[in-house]
Amino acid sequence: MNYKTASICVIGTELTQGIIADKHCKLISSELTKLGIHTNDMNIINDDGSIKTKLVDMVDESDIIIITGGLGPTSDDMTRESVAHVAGVELYQDEASLLALREKLGDRVDGANIIQTMFPKTFTPVVNPLGTAPGFKGFINKNNRSVAIAAMPGPPRELNEMFFSHILPWIATLVGKEELEREEYSSFLIGESVIEEISQRCRVGAVQWGTRFQEYKISYFLSDGTKEDRLKMFNNLQKECGPDLMVKGNTTALDTLTNDLMINKETISCSESCTGGLCAKLLTDLSGSSSYFYGGVVSYANEAKMSLLGVKKETLEKYGAVSSQTVIEMAEGINKISSTTYSLSTSGIAGPTGGTDDKPLGTIWFGFASKNLPSQSVCVKIFSYGRESVRRRAATTAFILLEKYKNGVNLQEVVKEWKYI
Amino acid sequence: MNYKTASICVIGTELTQGIIADKHCKLISSELTKLGIHTNDMNIINDDGSIKTKLVDMVDESDIIIITGGLGPTSDDMTRESVAHVAGVELYQDEASLLALREKLGDRVDGANIIQTMFPKTFTPVVNPLGTAPGFKGFINKNNRSVAIAAMPGPPRELNEMFFSHILPWIATLVGKEELEREEYSSFLIGESVIEEISQRCRVGAVQWGTRFQEYKISYFLSDGTKEDRLKMFNNLQKECGPDLMVKGNTTALDTLTNDLMINKETISCSESCTGGLCAKLLTDLSGSSSYFYGGVVSYANEAKMSLLGVKKETLEKYGAVSSQTVIEMAEGINKISSTTYSLSTSGIAGPTGGTDDKPLGTIWFGFASKNLPSQSVCVKIFSYGRESVRRRAATTAFILLEKYKNGVNLQEVVKEWKYI
Repeated sequence: MNYKTASICVIGTELTQGIIADKHCKLISSELTKLGIHTNDMNIINDDGSIKTKLVDMVDESDIIIITGGLGPTSDDMTRESVAHVAGVELYQDEASLLALREKLGDRVDGANIIQTMFPKTFTPVVNPLGTAPGFKGFINKNNRSVAIAAMPGPPRELNEMFFSHILPWIATLVGKEELEREEYSSFLIGESVIEEISQRCRVGAVQWGTRFQEYKISYFLSDGTKEDRLKMFNNLQKECGPDLMVKGNTTALDTLTNDLMINKETISCSESCTGGLCAKLLTDLSGSSSYFYGGVVSYANEAKMSLLGVKKETLEKYGAVSSQTVIEMAEGINKISSTTYSLSTSGIAGPTGGTDDKPLGTIWFGFASKNLPSQSVCVKIFSYGRESVRRRAATTAFILLEKYKNGVNLQEVVKEWKYI
Repeated sequence: MNYKTASICVIGTELTQGIIADKHCKLISSELTKLGIHTNDMNIINDDGSIKTKLVDMVDESDIIIITGGLGPTSDDMTRESVAHVAGVELYQDEASLLALREKLGDRVDGANIIQTMFPKTFTPVVNPLGTAPGFKGFINKNNRSVAIAAMPGPPRELNEMFFSHILPWIATLVGKEELEREEYSSFLIGESVIEEISQRCRVGAVQWGTRFQEYKISYFLSDGTKEDRLKMFNNLQKECGPDLMVKGNTTALDTLTNDLMINKETISCSESCTGGLCAKLLTDLSGSSSYFYGGVVSYANEAKMSLLGVKKETLEKYGAVSSQTVIEMAEGINKISSTTYSLSTSGIAGPTGGTDDKPLGTIWFGFASKNLPSQSVCVKIFSYGRESVRRRAATTAFILLEKYKNGVNLQEVVKEWKYI
């Protein structure tokens, strides 16, 4: 295909003054991405004629140029003239557009707004059912390259309608594509830059990938290449990351766990030290969480572990709060009080201080107890990007591990496969 | 003044792919506009090294250039190199930044991330307390013009902090506003649009105002006009909002409370129903919180309220979980177990379902108990913008009220003044 790259130019002084936030760039670029088009840059400029010089740069850079704004009737509205200038053509009057304008405005059509019915020669008008300024689309030739240019009005309502009804379908035909092939995945605990490195190593054929950091996961997608290659790459990734840390679909560890609890009508309680209430907070984020969540204890101080959960003083003295023995007693303590199906506990070094050689920052012990299953504990060392991040990933780890524990899996085996957290 | 125009450049492929929408352009340009600076253009580009050519254009165009992103440790992160290239200088290593990075990452400091402690010669590093990449600021000379350049990290939290604490004050001095005539305030619980309306009514003279939504407060500032007029307007606002909901400085209710607890060497515990662990999570966000935080109970189910806190079955049956009697028993229950100086409790309707005519969505009861003071309870009706917002504001309310309770104030009198929550 000849149209691989795009530049977007949004014209509006209310944007450069920071009065309103631009939304066109994201709207347009996300649709271009789906068509496999690479957006080189998105430029937000004043409606003071800057488009003239900006357009010259964009034509040098990109195969497709999408302009919004600058189509009004005043002398500041320079999009038409600028495109004509760069294309080396005159403006012409489009009779159908003039007729449409007369129908809309009646007697108020005059010298000023008639300009809205004029377009660069060789460009085609695009109707605007929601406003007075039609858009236009067409091509210019520059150094033996064909550059496609579309201009749309700035007001969001008008732009939306015109973009999705006319401009986007036109661009789709230019790139010979109608539908985008792409799959979504979710990854947990592993840093974004580490996922990037793993992806480089796992790449297959022409498959492209991308990540997006979100609080409790990293969204991941694979696109381009063949469907078979994308599946192969996903399998490589999953093997490398660990099967629990790179999963299909747009999901979180919390969603997986709570859906499962609801389906099975099971209940949960927790006793938290280093996560300090975060697990409980997340488990109650959803309305209706009372169907599976009993409650829990935030046993931050050692006295709280003893008074509220019955953790033994000797255990804390002998093994410390961050230990297998303590998290087991915490989990069993809350399980006994609550009589829930499952209980989890956390105790670790969230940082930024408190790490030792033996128990560095990010060392977290997790404990699990149940009415029906033997208790288990496991230690995970989470790379520290700071206290908040450690605590977030500790909560996610607890949810992933509880899901495995529910299924009777040996947790030591599970965490062995987590090489990159 | 010599610095009249600006170009903003936001680097991020997740932006040009349309995965997320840029918010930096509006944030930065609106502040520049307030300083009388004209933003020529805002450019959103890929992190593929495009910054190099874009920077050359911007230096030709504008007196101030603000770059966000491209400061990471990978070879795609070209902001440093590009600025050095255009300035015609080498990179140098900043020892203080290296030391700070080692403190943050320990052994994980290696070849890749050491680059984050290097800066173009003649440029000054700008600390980043919330991330690993410092920013930098400085000048280059081009055709007898001095162009000011500031580079900041892309993640919004980091950028926000750096922009308002360091870069914006620096730019203010460049344009001859030696001191940014502006005062910062913080407002709690009241919606941003409501604050805007109140501000309209309370305006004095030429005073300008602005709000910025943050998770646990709305940052508010007053600028322009005379200092006297700004003070007068603040007094109007505080009277209208309620003295606890519009306060001086950049702070949160949590900060005020925890500072006070630390200074007085007092301790706290909590028992939470509707906030579901959020109060505990917030109280433990800070490292060192073990000096004041004992822990608490998330008594989400009624059984948890009874088993863990000793709330009486008859109380729950007669008055319901969302009642004065229940929150008093919850607060007294955890206070007895924990022996902390103070205890707080929450129980309410976070929504989106569960509201009744009698107890609509957002109805929250708060209870307080102490070794030294009589228990108190108070009901607050928080306007519902959704479950998450209600829970966030419920936690904030608990912290504000505890601070008043500590001082022996009658809480009924306090909430009477809160007309706009």
